[in-house]
Parts: sequence; C-alpha cells; structure tokens
Amino acid sequence: MSAPAPDPGLGLVTTHNVRLFDEDQPLELASGATLGPVDVAYETYGTLNAARDNAVYICHALTGDAHAAGWHEGDRRPGWWDNLIGPGRAVDTDRWFVVSSNLLGGCQGTTGPSSTNPATGRAYGLDFPLVQMSDFVDVHLALARHLGIETFHAVVGGSLGGMQALQWALQAPQTLQRAVMIASSSRLTAQNIAFSAVGRQAIMRDENFHAGQFAQHGHNPDVGLAIARMMAHITYLSEEAFQTKFGRDPQTEPTPGFGIDFAVESYLDHQGEAFLSRFDALSYLYLTRVMDYFDPFADPAALTRLLDDPVDFLVMSFDSDWRFSTEHSRRIVRVLEQAGLPVSFREVRSDWGHDSFLLEVPTYHETIEAFLTANREVEGF
Amino acid sequence: MSAPAPDPGLGLVTTHNVRLFDEDQPLELASGATLGPVDVAYETYGTLNAARDNAVYICHALTGDAHAAGWHEGDRRPGWWDNLIGPGRAVDTDRWFVVSSNLLGGCQGTTGPSSTNPATGRAYGLDFPLVQMSDFVDVHLALARHLGIETFHAVVGGSLGGMQALQWALQAPQTLQRAVMIASSSRLTAQNIAFSAVGRQAIMRDENFHAGQFAQHGHNPDVGLAIARMMAHITYLSEEAFQTKFGRDPQTEPTPGFGIDFAVESYLDHQGEAFLSRFDALSYLYLTRVMDYFDPFADPAALTRLLDDPVDFLVMSFDSDWRFSTEHSRRIVRVLEQAGLPVSFREVRSDWGHDSFLLEVPTYHETIEAFLTANREVEGF
Repeated sequence: MSAPAPDPGLGLVTTHNVRLFDEDQPLELASGATLGPVDVAYETYGTLNAARDNAVYICHALTGDAHAAGWHEGDRRPGWWDNLIGPGRAVDTDRWFVVSSNLLGGCQGTTGPSSTNPATGRAYGLDFPLVQMSDFVDVHLALARHLGIETFHAVVGGSLGGMQALQWALQAPQTLQRAVMIASSSRLTAQNIAFSAVGRQAIMRDENFHAGQFAQHGHNPDVGLAIARMMAHITYLSEEAFQTKFGRDPQTEPTPGFGIDFAVESYLDHQGEAFLSRFDALSYLYLTRVMDYFDPFADPAALTRLLDDPVDFLVMSFDSDWRFSTEHSRRIVRVLEQAGLPVSFREVRSDWGHDSFLLEVPTYHETIEAFLTANREVEGF
Repeated sequence: MSAPAPDPGLGLVTTHNVRLFDEDQPLELASGATLGPVDVAYETYGTLNAARDNAVYICHALTGDAHAAGWHEGDRRPGWWDNLIGPGRAVDTDRWFVVSSNLLGGCQGTTGPSSTNPATGRAYGLDFPLVQMSDFVDVHLALARHLGIETFHAVVGGSLGGMQALQWALQAPQTLQRAVMIASSSRLTAQNIAFSAVGRQAIMRDENFHAGQFAQHGHNPDVGLAIARMMAHITYLSEEAFQTKFGRDPQTEPTPGFGIDFAVESYLDHQGEAFLSRFDALSYLYLTRVMDYFDPFADPAALTRLLDDPVDFLVMSFDSDWRFSTEHSRRIVRVLEQAGLPVSFREVRSDWGHDSFLLEVPTYHETIEAFLTANREVEGF
C-alpha cells in the first residue's frame, strides 16, 4: 500500500498581475520620489463575502513572494505558508478571503530594481529609488482598492512581514481590525544590521555586480548573493536546531579538505545555490535596507492615528529565535500597552529559531486561528 | 600638564625566526605527510631561570601571531595580549619566561600555505598539507627543545589557543604542569562550523583565488577574505556589546543608501580592510579547518597519557560569549572531572562576548594570575 497523498490544501492557484500605478499617475514614495509604472503580483485564496469584511492580508518576509499557499502547476512544493493557509487551516480559506502580494522592490512579479526603467529602457539597478516600510503599505492599500476591499479583518506577517503589519496599523488603522506580528521587530539591533550589511557587501563587492547594472553584462553577482544567503541562513536557525539537524555529521566526501566535508556545509551550499534561481541581488539590497531603517516608534507621533482607531494586536515570538529574539517582540508589546492599546503576546516554545514562523508549530498556529476567530467585542482575546 | 605616558610594559621586543625542521629532517605530520623546511617565528619575554622551570607558553588564536606583548619599533599598538603579559601583569614577566610563537600554517613568520614550496619554487597554495591540532603541538615542542625547555610551568591560550593547550596536555602531559583554556572548545558545533564554512566559501569563490595560486597572479582574494573577517567579527562580540558600542548610531553619510550609513557598518568595514594587510587567505582556510576537525575526546584513549601524568587545568568562559559559549567550557570540565583530573572552572561576567579574552577584564586576569602562582602541592588551586 502506498502512503496516502498529502492533503493538497488549496490545490492549484494562480498568480495575478496588476498595474496599480503608471507613469502618468505614479506612486509617490515617502522619500518624495515618484515611481511608475508599478506592477504588483498577487494571489487570492477563498471568497470575498458580500459584506466584504472577511479579507486577510498576508505580508511576506525578506525572500518570500505572492505565492503563499496552494500549488502552481508542476511544482514539487506548495506556497511558502501553505501549512498555515488553506481550507480548515489556521488561516481558514473556507472563512477568510486571503490576499498575498509580492513586495514593492521585490523580484517575483512586483516592480523592483531589476524591472525596466522606462527612462532608459534598461533595468533600474541602483537608480531604483530607496523605499521605506510605508511605501510597502501604500502599495498594499492600492491593491486593496483594486480588489474593492476597504477594511481587512486582519493583516498577518512574520519577520519583515510583521514589520509591514505594524507599519500598516500605525499608518492606516481604519483599514484593518487586527494585526498579527510573528518573529518580528520594530527596530533592528546593531547585530541585526551587521548581518545584513555583510551580506550586502558580499553582493556589491562581487566582480559581477557592475554597480548594479549586471543584467546588461549577462552575469549576475551569484557568488555574493549565495554568500549572503548562506550567512543569513545561519541566523535563521537556532544553534540547537543546527546541532539536531546536522551535528558534526560528515558528508559523503571521505578525505578532509576544503570541500563539503560536513553535512552542515552541504546544507548551506544547497541553500545558497537554490536561492540564485529565485532571487535577485538588487532586491536583496533594497529590502534589507528597508528593514535596517525601520524604526516607527522613534517618531513621537507614531501612535496618534492608532489611538483614534485602535487595532487588536497579536505579537508572537519563538524562544529559540536569536535573529529577532523575544526581546524584539516584547518591545513592541511594551510600547503598545503603554499607549493603552489591546495587545496579546505569546512566546512559543520551538527549537527551530527564526525559521519557526514558517514551520508547523501547533501552539503557534492555534494561537493565530483563535485570534482571527475571536469575537473581539465579547471575548476580548 | 600632559597625561602620563601609558605603562610601556615590556618596552621594545623582537621577533626571532628559527628553522626547526628542514628538507632532510622534515616534520612528520599526523596525516602521515611530511613538511620541510619549517621555520617558526617566536618571541620571548622575561628570563629563563637556572632551573629552567619558569617557562610559560602562549598559544595564539585564529588570527594572532608571535607578537603577544611588548612593542615593535614604530608600532602604535603593543602585542595582542599585552594587557595580560608583562612586568607585574597577570602573566608576570618578572617571574615567568614567556614563549609565544606563530602557528604552523600561519602567515606571520611561520611556515604556511603561502610559504615557498621547495618542490616548485612557488607558494604551496592548496598543495600545503592539511594539518591537525597535534601538528601545532609538535612544532611548539620542537621550539621548546630548541630553547632548552623540557617542562612548561603552564601553557595558556584563548579560543584556538585554548584548543592547543588542551591538545598539548593530552599529547605530551609530561611537558607541562598547568593548562589554561579560555573561551575555548573541545568540539565545534554545527553552527560554529557553519560560520567558518561560509567564510571559506567567500574566499574560495573570490575571482582572485585562482585555486589557491593567487600569489602568482598578483591579486589576492581580498573581497572574500574581508567578507569572511567581517562575518566572523559579528560572532566575536555579543549582541549587547554591538548595541552598547554602536546601537543604531548613524555614520557621517547623511543620505540613506547602500554605503556606510550606520556606525556598525563602518566598524565592520574597518575590520575587514585592516585584516587584509596582516593576514593571508590560505592560512584562514587551513587554520579554520583544523578547528572544525578538532574533537580529541572522540578518541576513547584520549586521556590515557594524561591519567599517568596529570596536568592542572584552568578552564574559563565568558557569560556573553556565543561563539564558544560556556557550554563548550563545561563540556571540557565534565570530561576531565569524570576522569578524576584536577580542573578549576570559572565563568566570568563580561559584556563583550568572545572578544573578552583579549580584553582587560579584572576577574579574568586575576584568576589567571592566581592559578599560575598557586602552590599546587599546598593550595591545590
């Protein structure tokens, strides 16, 4: 007897693409610069109800994309958050209408630094304007308007996705009822910035970077991008997870040398290589820089709008996450609580470090499900 | 009134160089390969007494060298452990005769992979044989014979230096009375190996690496070596130390971009650049690989010699060190204690992470001083 086929969840899904801003009516960025056209790749799962009040927006992390759940034809793996999103899952597509889009500055269907600059007919490269977290939210809101959604039941994100959820709540609290921030931060530490900075240096110092115009030269800065990804991956797992998964296990190579002698080296090598086929070096620069600069609570007026139109917050962390430790989440909770805003906080036990937010950790998924379905008037989650 | 001049400690010191093995009588490596000639750079401080029983050997860490203390003519800084070693200091050169040498495989005067291969007249490159921790100790012992020292009062090292002290005690316990291991390890974790592996990949994938024969091409793999160093530096400081030193302070550049916007980026950039003028990419590969493979307690007979000829151990760790956390030190202590060997252990409070072993932390220095001067018969430190 063969094993039962895995639950297909949503089954086949499709990525859509829409032009939300054009050259005549460009996106106005927080910096004052304008950008157009802006195309956005997105997916939706489930059905928007007649009252249009059952929508949930998913914000992806640094290297995510619009394909959060379900299957693309021919793929061997479903979307990156398929264990969370689907019929009967924590973000239940039988109940919620889920919207997931690729970020501004990204490289998987949404306009970014490797898109064509209409002024030159070539890729923007480093001429792409610097963007900020609020620009991400502005584009999300434009997509919402396109879809005819005024208010989201919830905005949910992990890591950089959680930063967007926080920024969204601060910026346009009337457009969401709940914000879920998982393994996220309101302000990177010097160490966080340091890891991103070294990754960016590896990319920009790659001989094939060509000041960002590598597309014209026919070679990508693959060495730098792979090194950045390998290094980042070390920070996505806890030390314990590395030890459990690999320990000091040898790889197949029998003779000591400078190749892939240990299993952990094979894992990192694979992570670096696999990344090259799906991610763009310029997007890596732009998106990590947005994270470095994100510090919304530095503005004394940050909470002003939110105080007039409160949003229910759920903040979650994982106890083995050292990329964005529980202390990052606690800081968000402290600031919101001090302002008298409704916040639920949970630190979840998990051995897997920052990556836990992508894994099927029961307590974590159950908490999200309960938060989304709680009757805020009655239960006050 | 000008400020008083800083205590010059040892004042001017000199690096010596000696050929310990030659082509006719080469060094026999643990792997079975032979190597000759082997030249060793070393320094000595203080005076060897008539009984020849007051010698202390200093083993350096990954990127150290023979110049542990005192000043070289024209230098703006003293040797790397000058705060520990000197007249009246914890390793008191009025009392002890201190020997410090550059490691086999190194690049600061001792034979290593960038030395000339007599078989080709060119740099060894990757034809340099793989070495092991026991080879380091064999060369230290050869230097001891050259200096006429049969027994060391103590062998002292931090990080990779502590690994050498441990290996020395296991391998030739009759040649030392005390071993001091600071912020060290008897076995790297998968995460430890991962950080070193990514650093090596950055070096080996650099366009200028040329399969290790870069010297012939007139360009060094500087990008890879700087990236490796920058990444390693993140692991040498605690997250708290980064926060205290830099936080989110901006650097001078006023406009956000992909340059050095934050102070922490300036620090890392400087660390990467400064390293290029004093270190060799091939030595980085060889020495980190020795650390990856070091696992002496995996051999059930590891303690055999030591049980016949016990050595007093002092094992120290720093509570904020996440490169080689206290757990690494505890493991050494557990194994030695279970074998009934005399071990003192101390975890020292320090905010500075792994780098603490290079800093002037009073409790730490006082503990070393007391351990070195204790009368083992009477006081049983």
